Amino acid sequence: KIDGSRLWDSLMEMAQIGPGIAGGNNRQTLTDDDAKGRALFQTWCEAAGMTMGVDEMGTMFARREGTDPDALPVYVGSHLDTQPTGGKYDGVLGVLGGLEIIRTLNDLGIRTKHPIVVTNWTNEEGTRFAPAMLASGVFAGMHTQDWAYDREDAEGLKFGDELARIGWKGDEPVGARKMHAFFELHIEQGPILEAEDTAIGVVTHGQGLWWLEVTLTGKDSHTGSTPMNMRVNAGLGMARITELVHTIAMENQPAAVGAIGQANVYPNSRNVIPGKAVFTIDFRSPDQSKLDGMKARLEAEAPKIAADLGLGIEIEPVGHFDPVTFDPGCVGAVRAAAERLGYSHMDLISGAGHDACWINRVAPTAMVMCPCVDGLSHNEAEEISPEWAAAGANVLFHAVVETAEI
Amino acid sequence: KIDGSRLWDSLMEMAQIGPGIAGGNNRQTLTDDDAKGRALFQTWCEAAGMTMGVDEMGTMFARREGTDPDALPVYVGSHLDTQPTGGKYDGVLGVLGGLEIIRTLNDLGIRTKHPIVVTNWTNEEGTRFAPAMLASGVFAGMHTQDWAYDREDAEGLKFGDELARIGWKGDEPVGARKMHAFFELHIEQGPILEAEDTAIGVVTHGQGLWWLEVTLTGKDSHTGSTPMNMRVNAGLGMARITELVHTIAMENQPAAVGAIGQANVYPNSRNVIPGKAVFTIDFRSPDQSKLDGMKARLEAEAPKIAADLGLGIEIEPVGHFDPVTFDPGCVGAVRAAAERLGYSHMDLISGAGHDACWINRVAPTAMVMCPCVDGLSHNEAEEISPEWAAAGANVLFHAVVETAEI
Ligand SMILES: NC(=O)NCCC(=O)O
Ligand SMILES: NC(=O)NCCC(=O)O
Repeated sequence: KIDGSRLWDSLMEMAQIGPGIAGGNNRQTLTDDDAKGRALFQTWCEAAGMTMGVDEMGTMFARREGTDPDALPVYVGSHLDTQPTGGKYDGVLGVLGGLEIIRTLNDLGIRTKHPIVVTNWTNEEGTRFAPAMLASGVFAGMHTQDWAYDREDAEGLKFGDELARIGWKGDEPVGARKMHAFFELHIEQGPILEAEDTAIGVVTHGQGLWWLEVTLTGKDSHTGSTPMNMRVNAGLGMARITELVHTIAMENQPAAVGAIGQANVYPNSRNVIPGKAVFTIDFRSPDQSKLDGMKARLEAEAPKIAADLGLGIEIEPVGHFDPVTFDPGCVGAVRAAAERLGYSHMDLISGAGHDACWINRVAPTAMVMCPCVDGLSHNEAEEISPEWAAAGANVLFHAVVETAEI
Repeated sequence: KIDGSRLWDSLMEMAQIGPGIAGGNNRQTLTDDDAKGRALFQTWCEAAGMTMGVDEMGTMFARREGTDPDALPVYVGSHLDTQPTGGKYDGVLGVLGGLEIIRTLNDLGIRTKHPIVVTNWTNEEGTRFAPAMLASGVFAGMHTQDWAYDREDAEGLKFGDELARIGWKGDEPVGARKMHAFFELHIEQGPILEAEDTAIGVVTHGQGLWWLEVTLTGKDSHTGSTPMNMRVNAGLGMARITELVHTIAMENQPAAVGAIGQANVYPNSRNVIPGKAVFTIDFRSPDQSKLDGMKARLEAEAPKIAADLGLGIEIEPVGHFDPVTFDPGCVGAVRAAAERLGYSHMDLISGAGHDACWINRVAPTAMVMCPCVDGLSHNEAEEISPEWAAAGANVLFHAVVETAEI
């Protein structure tokens, strides 16, 4: 078994870096605080006897050698970047859970046949630079590296420039590594495990996603002296499309969600009718036809809403992944580990996207989930218990070591 | 008659300061560019032989002496601050039109019995610091100066501190000046004069306004893994209240308007359901009972929308003025001037708020309006012709000089 209190201490130490304003974290990708978090992780990995590789997307790969020089490594990990008002566990648990496996193997003096590589994927959250899971997406061949480097944040700074600025642009070509398997431990970020009083989620599938960035173009004008019938109000268009997104999601129940997380009007002045609105729609479903159907309906109906109001409209996909079916062999290893350790467990569909969803396309992959309080995530109040973390890490430990073979 | 090309040249020279991004201006109140615009205006006033006074709200008063030491001055002016994406004429025409009166009197060697004071009121626009017409409101006793000093911009900077920072906090007590009359020339900012092919609007009334800042409080959570029935989505609440504002305005036609110009969701991340939304509603009507009825209906119905979604709601008035009836004597002087000069003219209700609306409470006041292309204002593309500007300034000249007596 892993050392639960050592794991917890490391989680708490990492959470000191990039503190939020309400007990959580703001350690967004490619910020100075991201660089500090990476440096701390590197120190820990080197202290555990691992050697660090960094690829051109800034993803960190800490390797513990195996006994068979020809065996492909088993990879384990997640991400250290957070939302702007994020929690202490989303992503971090999967990276430090991987580190805890290595520390435990060291304590026990166990060598595995396959090397084990603990990974910190760059820009999983996708808040600062869309889309989410950017580095794992390039690794899996879903995006080109040049395209990724050109992604811009709200200030117009480019991903590639910011990666170089913080000093974490490595020189290893992205995606060159071959994997025997990949495992990711993550908090559920939803309410099911807690409601079912179950310690372990065996993740069999992941839901698919469409992010659609909508730009509405109207006409800035005076809120007082412009008659109602002369207004071309982009903010009103955004409101109607917000309601449409909600309606589409509700009419696709169960197993579909939709919302708008990012929404901006311009010039954003109290006495100016918004002449422009830019916002991102997030649709998800584990069912491919529902997922694509929600997007198609939005693309059919939103332009009518815009036309009614005299608004121009552009709809640009800025993030997408299809629903995922994880590798039955790896999923079986996770389920067997939970069973062997005597933890209550159930099969789950992941509501969120994860690096594992992309890596599943290039290597046998599975995920382990543990509960989080009230299903709350992407909130500074995100919380888990040390026991939940330890149970998840134990299942990860057993699944990884079984796959890496002693 | 005034010199139309000199007036136009001054308008164009002032527009060099704080250029916008699309041909207009971004010279928001208490910015460095505001300070530059003030300095240029001061240079011009001094070159025209006037002496400058500045009060504790930063309002500038450039005085040309009269022949009667006991006569109260006639005031004329408007504001030099602009919207973030504002035009070159909104406010500026009224200040430089006032200056042009003085230059013309100098050219003609005419002295008036009453002194004439050309005024630049601080923070008319209200974009950076709500409410609009802040300095004229303090002058008229509608707000206390301490309250005005405490107004904060989006960065949390205070009005009083920024006024001191740009070096325009004067030491004259606000509101101490007594006025014989006040006249303001302004572009219409609406479509009526152009549609009626009429040169001059004789402003008899101004519509009243309520600005209501609404804060909705929900719960940040993950857009993917939070089931629809567990969401407390402040962005959806904002959308529904946006639609309600539009409905209320439409059901109070004619002579009522309503919109939301400023709208922000938090944390404004693509994959976080907004846990907070803050936005400002702008309701206006020339009819007091409609105006207050719109506010009352919003205050009754918005909390129901919030409650339906599980959201907390706070509604705070951040700007208000009652409908205005301008002084019949001053209005008559404007109408008579237009008549005498042979310009087409019609009575108008001002759709926008103006410093004149507050000053009307402490001195006999009237306004002159000239058309603007497509009724467009609060937009960088705001446009007028040199002929329209000259006609407005000529009417202002005659009304002011008649009131100041030769
Ligand atoms: N796990 C997680 O929150 N990933 C971010 C990408 C997403 O929005 O699903
Ligand atoms: N004239 C003008 O645009 N004033 C700003 C205050 C208002 O919104 O009416």
